[in-house]
Amino acid sequence: MAGGRADGGAVSSSGPPSIGVVGLGLIGGSLARRLVAEARPAVGWDADAGTRAAARAAGLPVASSLAALAEAGGVVVIAVPLPAVDDVLAAVAAAAPPGTVVTDTTSVKEPVRALAARHRVTFVGGHPMAGTAESGFGASSAELLAGATWALTLDDETDLADWMTIAGVVMSLGCAVVPMTSAAHDHAVAAVSHLPHVLAAALVLGAADPLARTLAAGSFRDATRVATTRAELVAAMCAGNADALESQLTALGERLMQVGQLLRQPAGLTRWFASAREARVDWPDTAGREMELTGAGLRARLLAAGLAGGRVVAVGPDRVLVRTAVSADEEQTGTPARGRGSR
Amino acid sequence: MAGGRADGGAVSSSGPPSIGVVGLGLIGGSLARRLVAEARPAVGWDADAGTRAAARAAGLPVASSLAALAEAGGVVVIAVPLPAVDDVLAAVAAAAPPGTVVTDTTSVKEPVRALAARHRVTFVGGHPMAGTAESGFGASSAELLAGATWALTLDDETDLADWMTIAGVVMSLGCAVVPMTSAAHDHAVAAVSHLPHVLAAALVLGAADPLARTLAAGSFRDATRVATTRAELVAAMCAGNADALESQLTALGERLMQVGQLLRQPAGLTRWFASAREARVDWPDTAGREMELTGAGLRARLLAAGLAGGRVVAVGPDRVLVRTAVSADEEQTGTPARGRGSR
Repeated sequence: MAGGRADGGAVSSSGPPSIGVVGLGLIGGSLARRLVAEARPAVGWDADAGTRAAARAAGLPVASSLAALAEAGGVVVIAVPLPAVDDVLAAVAAAAPPGTVVTDTTSVKEPVRALAARHRVTFVGGHPMAGTAESGFGASSAELLAGATWALTLDDETDLADWMTIAGVVMSLGCAVVPMTSAAHDHAVAAVSHLPHVLAAALVLGAADPLARTLAAGSFRDATRVATTRAELVAAMCAGNADALESQLTALGERLMQVGQLLRQPAGLTRWFASAREARVDWPDTAGREMELTGAGLRARLLAAGLAGGRVVAVGPDRVLVRTAVSADEEQTGTPARGRGSR
Repeated sequence: MAGGRADGGAVSSSGPPSIGVVGLGLIGGSLARRLVAEARPAVGWDADAGTRAAARAAGLPVASSLAALAEAGGVVVIAVPLPAVDDVLAAVAAAAPPGTVVTDTTSVKEPVRALAARHRVTFVGGHPMAGTAESGFGASSAELLAGATWALTLDDETDLADWMTIAGVVMSLGCAVVPMTSAAHDHAVAAVSHLPHVLAAALVLGAADPLARTLAAGSFRDATRVATTRAELVAAMCAGNADALESQLTALGERLMQVGQLLRQPAGLTRWFASAREARVDWPDTAGREMELTGAGLRARLLAAGLAGGRVVAVGPDRVLVRTAVSADEEQTGTPARGRGSR
């Protein structure tokens, strides 16, 4: 398996699959650029003729049609905005040969999982945790996805071998794969992505008067930076994850009620801010301990590792190497968590 | 008055006042460094002996005691955390000669205004809108306050000549003065500073599980950056502005309820995000049009200019030059707001 790490993990005995990228915006464009930069067999396509021309001008192979891209089989990556996924899946399902594995890059997984089931495509959901407030092919770059954490969904209906195939592709790009169910993904991104987008917009709208805008400085700038993202994209991802986001909004409302009650208890308020500070200073969590997962129950162990903050660092046909997070405290003492209290 | 702009505005016929800076942390240390760098007559003091030694080692003049600093009169800048202001004001009131004008740099103005009244010091409240998540003299620099927007309070009891004196000092440091009442200040900073600090902490605490922390990326990083600020400082400023912050929390709660209802109406949700995006893209507002304020009603006109997003660019004994914000729309058409519809 050590050899599998260098080329991103063995995928199949017949060599790496050809990869079609549908949608050449910020993420799809960056993915296609990266594949081409690494001399991988890849082809792209976009519904917009101007984008296709720009991609060709940038030296990327572009298919003559979406059907032609799908007919090539291999791995098809759907990198279009959520509202366009349904039509693209229908077209891919109609044209792709058996054995084609479809993945995507959208920021919500349960709705895409449902669409994939409806169109009966072999599917592994994906979500690279990378982006900017910009969008479109013009903003794409081969470096955007470098080192990104990449969620890959492993649901009841997901074939583990297909999951390994997509994991191998992702890792060959230098990204870290995190296994999780679609539901766990949507719950987590509601907290770390969709809620921050909502709060950034709410903060901007709550500081509308000229005096407030004049006094706004660093804390406002940082807290509202993502409010410049294209409204259609943000609204689609929030609406696509309405249930999970709604429960996050409720939890936040309760938290803010607590803070309101602490405003006249400075000691309690200080403790509240201190607990948040400690958690933020420790983030991102250091990835430190490696574990090899293999044999029976691999699927369940992958999901458990993902929930515990683990990232896949190598995949073989029937084994996976995972690097799990180490808490700052543990890192200082050098004692692995499982060793504690066992002496 | 053009000449007044070069040296930051005429202050008095007897030359610029000597300036004592009490508290040499991030803001006070940066202020003292800047004054010394510009060869202004300045002296600092800090309650902490180690900080005094560090300041002396950095070449800053340090008074032998707080009383000695206050006895020198001129302008005294109180740059200590809010909970320490009461004791410092008492010491300054006991030692400062008549004619001394006291100002401060704390992030809440009504509580300090009340303390200043109780200690019967001549007071103009101040708040430079600059900072970092760091604190302490070690994090201070002569550049931190460069170009900063600096709120100066003009309340019913504030003497306009004293306000002009402090405005002259602030402008001589290259900062832009914004006139406002203490109440208007506290209302505005609750929206653009204290609420973002609360939300940053709430976001961190709402993303405590390892999977969420693994998936957290740019939007989470930006939205929670200020959560690394020292908890005591954040809690003191939030507790010191409890009323205004509470009303901001209530307003935010209502806004989030609206969003919750829009989650299943993508078109309405897109409009909501688009309105926030437009407001954020337009920020910071371009300061474009200059107005000279003079004569009767100067106090009221200063406050009106501040509320409209105006920044003072020069002060004379009885006149003030203000640069007011121009909306992006107005800027594009080149038509000043007051000229519209008057043809």
